Amino acid sequence: MVARKDFKYPDTKMFKYVKHGLNKRGVRMKDIAKIVYKLEKAYLPKLTVKQCKKEVINTLHKREVMNNIAIGLYLDKVATKGKIDEPLQSIIAADAGVFGVDESLAVAICNTAGSIALSNYGYLDKAKTGIIKRLDNSHKHVNTFIDDAVGAVAAAVAAKIAHGDA
Amino acid sequence: MVARKDFKYPDTKMFKYVKHGLNKRGVRMKDIAKIVYKLEKAYLPKLTVKQCKKEVINTLHKREVMNNIAIGLYLDKVATKGKIDEPLQSIIAADAGVFGVDESLAVAICNTAGSIALSNYGYLDKAKTGIIKRLDNSHKHVNTFIDDAVGAVAAAVAAKIAHGDA
Amino acid sequence: MVARKDFKYPDTKMFKYVKHGLNKRGVRMKDIAKIVYKLEKAYLPKLTVKQCKKEVINTLHKREVMNNIAIGLYLDKVATKGKIDEPLQSIIAADAGVFGVDESLAVAICNTAGSIALSNYGYLDKAKTGIIKRLDNSHKHVNTFIDDAVGAVAAAVAAKIAHGDA
Amino acid sequence: MVARKDFKYPDTKMFKYVKHGLNKRGVRMKDIAKIVYKLEKAYLPKLTVKQCKKEVINTLHKREVMNNIAIGLYLDKVATKGKIDEPLQSIIAADAGVFGVDESLAVAICNTAGSIALSNYGYLDKAKTGIIKRLDNSHKHVNTFIDDAVGAVAAAVAAKIAHGDA
Repeated sequence: MVARKDFKYPDTKMFKYVKHGLNKRGVRMKDIAKIVYKLEKAYLPKLTVKQCKKEVINTLHKREVMNNIAIGLYLDKVATKGKIDEPLQSIIAADAGVFGVDESLAVAICNTAGSIALSNYGYLDKAKTGIIKRLDNSHKHVNTFIDDAVGAVAAAVAAKIAHGDA
Repeated sequence: MVARKDFKYPDTKMFKYVKHGLNKRGVRMKDIAKIVYKLEKAYLPKLTVKQCKKEVINTLHKREVMNNIAIGLYLDKVATKGKIDEPLQSIIAADAGVFGVDESLAVAICNTAGSIALSNYGYLDKAKTGIIKRLDNSHKHVNTFIDDAVGAVAAAVAAKIAHGDA
Repeated sequence: MVARKDFKYPDTKMFKYVKHGLNKRGVRMKDIAKIVYKLEKAYLPKLTVKQCKKEVINTLHKREVMNNIAIGLYLDKVATKGKIDEPLQSIIAADAGVFGVDESLAVAICNTAGSIALSNYGYLDKAKTGIIKRLDNSHKHVNTFIDDAVGAVAAAVAAKIAHGDA
Repeated sequence: MVARKDFKYPDTKMFKYVKHGLNKRGVRMKDIAKIVYKLEKAYLPKLTVKQCKKEVINTLHKREVMNNIAIGLYLDKVATKGKIDEPLQSIIAADAGVFGVDESLAVAICNTAGSIALSNYGYLDKAKTGIIKRLDNSHKHVNTFIDDAVGAVAAAVAAKIAHGDA
């Protein structure tokens, strides 16, 4: 399709879509803030969960962040309904380590916050901190994209906080 | 969902899905090979389109490449039908420069071939060589993801050929 | 070495090092601004070189940007003197396409501005717009890193301007 | 400098430079293999350290991998001697979290093995497994680049082994 240069990006609607989508998966802003807090409290003794939550909300307003999360939320939703074309449906539903697209989107989120966000994300992807573990163990929903997206947002916010302090 | 560790990646089915999906968009292996040829012929006078096509087919068998293309093909298809959740549907249909997820997936394809693939991809994304221009100017189909994916595959193959020669 | 957590990043000194290093290579802020202008004028008829220059200066104050440019400036300088260990010295002096580290650093600069910066960078790396061509054709200095760094800064600034307009 | 298109990449010399450089820092192939083994043994009960070592050696022969490690080894060496231009010297010697160039090079190494290598790398960068911890705690040498490079190589090899098994 020819690109529409007059297109106005729907910032408010996208933030609502992302926030609502996360909430439906049981992810509140505070859950992400708690992961950030765990990552950074050792370095910043005065840090509070409240401050982290404020930064989570800021980061979730970035277009690049919203776009990548929204695609992940949409794909997880359609995959939960079993409606994606085969063999993609099976690959996504299995959350196969060999898939990697969930990680491509997460890396794009991390990149908004500089290269140290990537280390945080990789760590969270293995350590399955907080809400990430709960997403990963769901037996009802496909959370292939959303656990990585949540980890990437927490990683990006933690990197931003670390940079600010440096 | 809990990751299924016994999952067997359906290589043959995925290659068919990707090839068939590209064909339905009017993209044949030879169209991608011609872009590769244009990128590399100045450096490799003995290069043929046939050789390029062979390498395109090899690259399209890589799982990381297939996964990222398949997601793009699926999203373009559903967007063409107008079925994606709003406001994502409008953003994808407009092929807005500010979207960036199409480029995240393309970067993942490029990364399979080393960092010089990225320059080739960026160039193709601007120069709209060959079939990429046709995809970009379609008035019937949403090709938001697939033009980037085709460019990234051509870029990765060209990088691979360049490396092999170096 | 154990990381020094009390380290204060020398923002002012780094900006001076980067600006001075670019100047010594014949690269002024305005040269980078002109590349940005060429990339974006078709989309933004009211854009001026002056505005572009202001954004170039802003982007050159980002730590991630300064760090990656500074390393490139340093390596080009030492390579020009022929002082890097072999076989690295020969690889860098030849500006071999197969090297790729120059592109890794450029990608890190692009990532500070979202994924569309990468397309701009890739395009500039092929099209050799403006000052980039002059750097690339030097017979006196090794400019292996700096041409990519200049392209990446222009690409990042252009992406930022494009985003702001969207 | 004008790129030399007749340049022959010195594969054997580069592998020797990288291997020797790692050895001088106390890093043997087996140390990296042990990290890979720790990452993958839970998933692959039949895996041996010997197999991991073989894959480490293969990965260390990739040009993109060698180039990024070699630059890191060189910069750590010159920084240990205190010879890098200020303020870069102080930033590198402090191994400041805000630097990020070490992570840019590590990401380039990870990218040779697909996006799941990045998670492994991020994890190792936090967990400081095996030899990485020893490098990180050195009081004699600047190891700003090399600890990330070792983590990235282990991460890439682990990803490759995981993919092969999938």
